[in-house]
Amino acid sequence: MTLSEEQRAAVEDARAAEQPTRRATVPSLEEILFEPLPVLDRGFVRVVDYMGDDAAIVQAARVSYGRGTRNVRDDAGLIGYLMRHRHTSPFEMCEIKLHVKLPMFVARQWIRHRTANVNEYSARYSILDREFYLPAIGDIATQSESNRQGRGDALTEPVAAELRERMRAHAEEAFDLYDSLLDGEDGVARELGRTVLPVSAYTQWYWKIDLHNLLHFLALRADPHAQLEIRAYAEVLIDIVNKWVPITAAAFDAHRLQGASLSRGQVEAIRRRLRGETVAAADVGLSAREWRELATILGEDG
Amino acid sequence: MTLSEEQRAAVEDARAAEQPTRRATVPSLEEILFEPLPVLDRGFVRVVDYMGDDAAIVQAARVSYGRGTRNVRDDAGLIGYLMRHRHTSPFEMCEIKLHVKLPMFVARQWIRHRTANVNEYSARYSILDREFYLPAIGDIATQSESNRQGRGDALTEPVAAELRERMRAHAEEAFDLYDSLLDGEDGVARELGRTVLPVSAYTQWYWKIDLHNLLHFLALRADPHAQLEIRAYAEVLIDIVNKWVPITAAAFDAHRLQGASLSRGQVEAIRRRLRGETVAAADVGLSAREWRELATILGEDG
Amino acid sequence: MTLSEEQRAAVEDARAAEQPTRRATVPSLEEILFEPLPVLDRGFVRVVDYMGDDAAIVQAARVSYGRGTRNVRDDAGLIGYLMRHRHTSPFEMCEIKLHVKLPMFVARQWIRHRTANVNEYSARYSILDREFYLPAIGDIATQSESNRQGRGDALTEPVAAELRERMRAHAEEAFDLYDSLLDGEDGVARELGRTVLPVSAYTQWYWKIDLHNLLHFLALRADPHAQLEIRAYAEVLIDIVNKWVPITAAAFDAHRLQGASLSRGQVEAIRRRLRGETVAAADVGLSAREWRELATILGEDG
Amino acid sequence: MTLSEEQRAAVEDARAAEQPTRRATVPSLEEILFEPLPVLDRGFVRVVDYMGDDAAIVQAARVSYGRGTRNVRDDAGLIGYLMRHRHTSPFEMCEIKLHVKLPMFVARQWIRHRTANVNEYSARYSILDREFYLPAIGDIATQSESNRQGRGDALTEPVAAELRERMRAHAEEAFDLYDSLLDGEDGVARELGRTVLPVSAYTQWYWKIDLHNLLHFLALRADPHAQLEIRAYAEVLIDIVNKWVPITAAAFDAHRLQGASLSRGQVEAIRRRLRGETVAAADVGLSAREWRELATILGEDG
Repeated sequence: MTLSEEQRAAVEDARAAEQPTRRATVPSLEEILFEPLPVLDRGFVRVVDYMGDDAAIVQAARVSYGRGTRNVRDDAGLIGYLMRHRHTSPFEMCEIKLHVKLPMFVARQWIRHRTANVNEYSARYSILDREFYLPAIGDIATQSESNRQGRGDALTEPVAAELRERMRAHAEEAFDLYDSLLDGEDGVARELGRTVLPVSAYTQWYWKIDLHNLLHFLALRADPHAQLEIRAYAEVLIDIVNKWVPITAAAFDAHRLQGASLSRGQVEAIRRRLRGETVAAADVGLSAREWRELATILGEDG
Repeated sequence: MTLSEEQRAAVEDARAAEQPTRRATVPSLEEILFEPLPVLDRGFVRVVDYMGDDAAIVQAARVSYGRGTRNVRDDAGLIGYLMRHRHTSPFEMCEIKLHVKLPMFVARQWIRHRTANVNEYSARYSILDREFYLPAIGDIATQSESNRQGRGDALTEPVAAELRERMRAHAEEAFDLYDSLLDGEDGVARELGRTVLPVSAYTQWYWKIDLHNLLHFLALRADPHAQLEIRAYAEVLIDIVNKWVPITAAAFDAHRLQGASLSRGQVEAIRRRLRGETVAAADVGLSAREWRELATILGEDG
Repeated sequence: MTLSEEQRAAVEDARAAEQPTRRATVPSLEEILFEPLPVLDRGFVRVVDYMGDDAAIVQAARVSYGRGTRNVRDDAGLIGYLMRHRHTSPFEMCEIKLHVKLPMFVARQWIRHRTANVNEYSARYSILDREFYLPAIGDIATQSESNRQGRGDALTEPVAAELRERMRAHAEEAFDLYDSLLDGEDGVARELGRTVLPVSAYTQWYWKIDLHNLLHFLALRADPHAQLEIRAYAEVLIDIVNKWVPITAAAFDAHRLQGASLSRGQVEAIRRRLRGETVAAADVGLSAREWRELATILGEDG
Repeated sequence: MTLSEEQRAAVEDARAAEQPTRRATVPSLEEILFEPLPVLDRGFVRVVDYMGDDAAIVQAARVSYGRGTRNVRDDAGLIGYLMRHRHTSPFEMCEIKLHVKLPMFVARQWIRHRTANVNEYSARYSILDREFYLPAIGDIATQSESNRQGRGDALTEPVAAELRERMRAHAEEAFDLYDSLLDGEDGVARELGRTVLPVSAYTQWYWKIDLHNLLHFLALRADPHAQLEIRAYAEVLIDIVNKWVPITAAAFDAHRLQGASLSRGQVEAIRRRLRGETVAAADVGLSAREWRELATILGEDG
């Protein structure tokens, strides 16, 4: 991550100003406000603004005249109940605004989550800096054979290093061409010049989302099936959520991230086994795949 | 508007607490934070939380590292440009959360705006207070003949007073029946008992919306074609927007509330008239209705 | 359910017309197209249009040039996989449009699902027919003690009949007042007159939604915690989904309606028990409520 | 545009099948159903499915039991009224599903319209064909000086041809690197290999949207300020809308595409001029920019 001096100064200025407010305020989030948290080789996430806290969820669920909370234990009980029963609207009452710098191929996955507000840096309007993503040596891996959309084993260090160097050289050439296309009096329009850039180039945007939709995003993007590069962002976001709404974050961890969804047949298999029966996939109408997924959930897959 | 002592105390407690924050803060909105602003006979709007200010719109449009604003004149120029060219996403970067008490028939119109977050007080879970809307004497009017969905002339005071009394008596009977249905050991479920209540009964909700969608809501609901009762809420909301984001509010007033949309034929009619031609509706392919609408826009309707 | 002769004729006319199309077509849904399916005492659901079928889900998931399907078994496997892993976008590729007649208090719950398109019959513009919902005798029940928002035991038949008669009389009086308010030259505006009507009055709307969001609606509204009256609509909608996309309907039944979501602690409890350990709620950090919910899932609650 | 033989055959198969339906059907759209309509050098748009027609808009606006239409003139009057007064919900009752092949940089602009359903071809899951966009010689232009995000004058033919050749060579090298990264037993994961591809590479997706949101998309993307490449798609989509819902398309053309929005000051300027006054920008509080925009609307700009 590299900020220009001017950018660094703008961040510091923003952090220095403090005003009094009657709004719900979260000191541990104020602590990191505006600060760029590094992700990947040159990306970052900055919390730019937020609305609400754990208490605001309780307050909305109760349609309260005041703060709405009782005590930590009651509030945690209510939040757990709402999470378990998918009463999602109270979680929509909290909102967060982030400034994110990320490779375009990550941005293309990210933007698929539609229930958010976005303002992206425009390469029609401005010239992009020479910044592109290169995977770390240890992250360069073969195509997975079991998972059609994932990575398998890491390549050996020398092979990976050589590939990485070729990727680097190609990206540099792309930016050379980009610069030369835009250069001089006969320079082509920025909107045309940018078409030669690789999807590894970094872009940035302001992204604003409510807590419910953020958690949904995280459930999908912090998942082991998600691409490593977007997962790196999801992990930083989970840290932010922990600082922001710790009670909700804990409930989310227990009920979503570390919970499990079972089908009718999977429930049936468990019921029978608990009654002492021996059960096979076919007895409960499960496919081989669902049977393996159940074994994984039950920690019996190895 | 009537708040119980307990509710009043909860509001005061919330208003008394003040914390420091690094977030964008709007003193004139802080001033009225949590305070119920009366609407209709027993309704209110309370600002419960907000995110962003005029500068946050500029900041997002520029994807800035700092506050993002330059000077008031530049910022106003940019905001006006965004408003005129319907670049809506920067306005989505501001958010407001309200607690609203409103008659159910108003709530049914209001909820049609889907791009908002809502938590409504549940009459399945809790018992509703005996509160219902009665129009003011001067607002009781005949069906409009020119507008199939609007009001015409006000009724005379004695006639209106008599109708109002019948409406009042009927609403009281409805609440009497409601209370008696819920009463005692054999009381029916709240979710059933409430089915006898009139749509004039008050409900309440937390409602959270971004600034762009709020302005869209106001463009439709502050319009003279909107029902008087929801317009009363829209007017209070416009006051709130004026306090919150005065530059945006002014641009909205100039470009939307007091601006006009013209069709091709209407533009053509103006062009020709400015060239000195005499133009009739048929010359530019306008219907009688569109022709009248143009006259209204041009202030030539009577 | 009562259709006027004119309405009945309009339905028949619509049913009689048949055209050739190249679009995906579902004969068993064509069978019931436009036909009002009765719900509650006077409500209905009519399928007015639809787009796509089971194959369209597969086609979109594969971004195909042709129909996209292979064989029923492969398609069912893919649909089950998509359902299990919450890959929701292919299910959004099917769409259905319904004409629904429903009590206003049901409409108020229904409309909370925002990802749908709605055109409601306007009581500002037109006069409502004298139609209101009365619960069947057997559905009139006390407030549940265990569930703050549900029903308990049914009342005895004579008590229920008496309450129902009072509800009926009150609704009739409401419509009497409504008619009298609108009546004559001095009749008040329809938008005002309607405010005296009870939320048991029937309204109607066109409602259009994609299959993913419809299934989400059904998961919440066919649930035993949903109010009986909206559940009655959900059950008719499930029948429609069965006719429309039988493979998807079966996967939805297995993975959602009859499946279960477990928290980390609940999974841990099962794991330990399957290893032969005796486990109590506290051992796995479950509240009494979560412990009971687990017992219910495992069929061990009584 | 290039379809493989297999793709061409799949399209022909889909076009050959015809079934009877009771649904609203549009013969002129059936005519082109499934057929790829070429856009840019290798892109296309295919209509894959549709729901509703002009009559369906009227039907929903009237919440009808039958087809809902009266006669063409009445229907056109109602549709024009709905369009003019931004009663958007009836237009949401029509839906269209498209298969689109488009360069990634166009896809990134396109996806910003959130109220649509998307299934994109996955480069994590599958290998992309060697297909990338190159601008036509005549479309290679300098950066506009008056418009920070647009094109100015076209370059001379030899200069443009030389630049185009450099863009071509670079894109070929990118695909060479891509192929070599994925190649062999040590080939890297597809999700990594694709990061070297330029944003000019073609992707494809299924895209489904309702008519209201499609028109909104077209109002923004058929605008002269939109980038030439996405405008090429918008123009093909407008042709499709003309075939699908001709009455709505005409109203859209008259009220949106060729209509104009005026601010309070602009309206005031026109009013005064029509009364014979001479007016300057300052008299009505307009900026120089708004004054020029008014001149353009009035056809007085040169």
